[in-house]
Amino acid sequence: MKDATSIRHAIGVDFGGTFIKMALVSERGEIKARAKIPTKDAPGLDGWLDAVGRGLEQLKDKKAPADAPLAGIGVGVPGFVDFERGFIYDLANVPGWTNVHLAPRIEERFHLHVRVDNDVNVMALGECTYGAGRAYQHAVFVTLGTGVGGGIVINNQLYRGAYSMAGEIGHVPIRMDGVKSPQGRGGLEQYVGNRRLVERVVQALQQGRASLIRELAQGDLSAITVELIAKAAGQGDALALELFDFMADCLAAAFASVAYLIQPQAFIIGGGIAQSGAILFDPLRRHLTERLSPVFAERIVVKPAELGNDAGVIGAATLSMME
Amino acid sequence: MKDATSIRHAIGVDFGGTFIKMALVSERGEIKARAKIPTKDAPGLDGWLDAVGRGLEQLKDKKAPADAPLAGIGVGVPGFVDFERGFIYDLANVPGWTNVHLAPRIEERFHLHVRVDNDVNVMALGECTYGAGRAYQHAVFVTLGTGVGGGIVINNQLYRGAYSMAGEIGHVPIRMDGVKSPQGRGGLEQYVGNRRLVERVVQALQQGRASLIRELAQGDLSAITVELIAKAAGQGDALALELFDFMADCLAAAFASVAYLIQPQAFIIGGGIAQSGAILFDPLRRHLTERLSPVFAERIVVKPAELGNDAGVIGAATLSMME
Repeated sequence: MKDATSIRHAIGVDFGGTFIKMALVSERGEIKARAKIPTKDAPGLDGWLDAVGRGLEQLKDKKAPADAPLAGIGVGVPGFVDFERGFIYDLANVPGWTNVHLAPRIEERFHLHVRVDNDVNVMALGECTYGAGRAYQHAVFVTLGTGVGGGIVINNQLYRGAYSMAGEIGHVPIRMDGVKSPQGRGGLEQYVGNRRLVERVVQALQQGRASLIRELAQGDLSAITVELIAKAAGQGDALALELFDFMADCLAAAFASVAYLIQPQAFIIGGGIAQSGAILFDPLRRHLTERLSPVFAERIVVKPAELGNDAGVIGAATLSMME
Repeated sequence: MKDATSIRHAIGVDFGGTFIKMALVSERGEIKARAKIPTKDAPGLDGWLDAVGRGLEQLKDKKAPADAPLAGIGVGVPGFVDFERGFIYDLANVPGWTNVHLAPRIEERFHLHVRVDNDVNVMALGECTYGAGRAYQHAVFVTLGTGVGGGIVINNQLYRGAYSMAGEIGHVPIRMDGVKSPQGRGGLEQYVGNRRLVERVVQALQQGRASLIRELAQGDLSAITVELIAKAAGQGDALALELFDFMADCLAAAFASVAYLIQPQAFIIGGGIAQSGAILFDPLRRHLTERLSPVFAERIVVKPAELGNDAGVIGAATLSMME
């Protein structure tokens, strides 16, 4: 008999190119225990299942004896997934993971309820359930990094579209005659992906533009990172501030598309650069207001993510408890 | 006791600037009877209710005695609506309709279940339930005219967003540095709205470009319409074909945003110009394929609407039966 007062727990797995991070997560979104395995120590599907099995044993031990049995295991993976079948088409940065029917393998091995989804989707679910988006029923999560990922939460549930591929905000065109890529033309990611931003700054410096960025990089242009540009912006460097303004305006153009199409209540921004604070969020809110009619602009919130690197494990565990 | 074999019917009202069109519609999407009232003969809210009351009496008479009582009345209106409350903020082309709480007035007058929504939303529901989108669970309806309207159907239901304003595809930016408007910058409608298309052609003609369009307009540039340009394109006129290609490419850019964000199964295109056939749809499909990664492009259908001017009354009646 199920004790109505017992709190459910699930295992969240954040499968990254460098680490497999695991956590025991309560239905209140609290992390009760953690495990972390280098991805290189878990080669192939069998190696992966073995490693996750070891992590699972460690985590199970941390559950109080009075707690209910584990409600499930959720896995976020860096690539294309057919959510309905728990099938991985391909992982971008992990070799050997093409056409892997993961969910049934986990289920037969660990006898747990399993859900597998794209890593950005599970982060979106984590942030929108327990993090910066917890007060909203309709929110869009955007993560800024090498690429730009997105996850859409409608009525507190992930929205996946007709074939599990929705939420690709990084490919939303902001300039129809812009940069060509395999995903089309003028996609957001082609302008605000970390490498593109760094290239833009390097180009300006090579053209002789004076900037604190050059000193911070100690003259080595190949040492410039987005974090370094953010540091320069924080010290009032004009070139760095221009770059953040450009980035904010590109994001605002894509967010205007999102707002006019699906009208969420909030945009939640994750990824390292989202920690830059006012340097990013002030121009982002200003440009978004310029790019929307007032009836839309006044109903939209833009804020930074709150769960940081835990969004993945919390979201993955939550997914397995929700669906 | 309800006869399970009886077919439900509802009244659909398509409230336009020129006519109030009404129809008795079955739950199979068939129009059983019609009524049509000039909008000028129905002044103000009371005049409107009187006119709709007269139409309702005509239509009720056409219902077979064996049929169940009317399931409801649905109204599509040309403007901003709070669907939950059945409240009209403002109608663009009908004076005197600002802040009108329509649904309760209809309910107290006619004692029918009432739903009020934006006209493009009800057309989208009609097309996606009984018209070109009937085979799809997830479809986006776009209507091309003076403006560009949109309606999103997810899981066979209208998707309205957080505050009933979603689906504004006409305002989706396709050029972040493009034409300014009260809705932002570079919105689709600023390029493919009928007047913008005509302006583009007139400009080319004024610059001395040779084109059949000039002859078809008998030299009177103010007589040029989108229909006339379509006629010229049908006869192989280079300028007219260029215009259609430009229009198709702009639509494709906005559709790429829609596809990457919500991944519908189909785009259904309505409005007069959608009757142009291959002149519009061939370049539209080609440009959309160029603007999407193959995994998205191969899963998207683009087709013309099928219900024509009946989409509004059928959709409005359907709305009152569904929600």
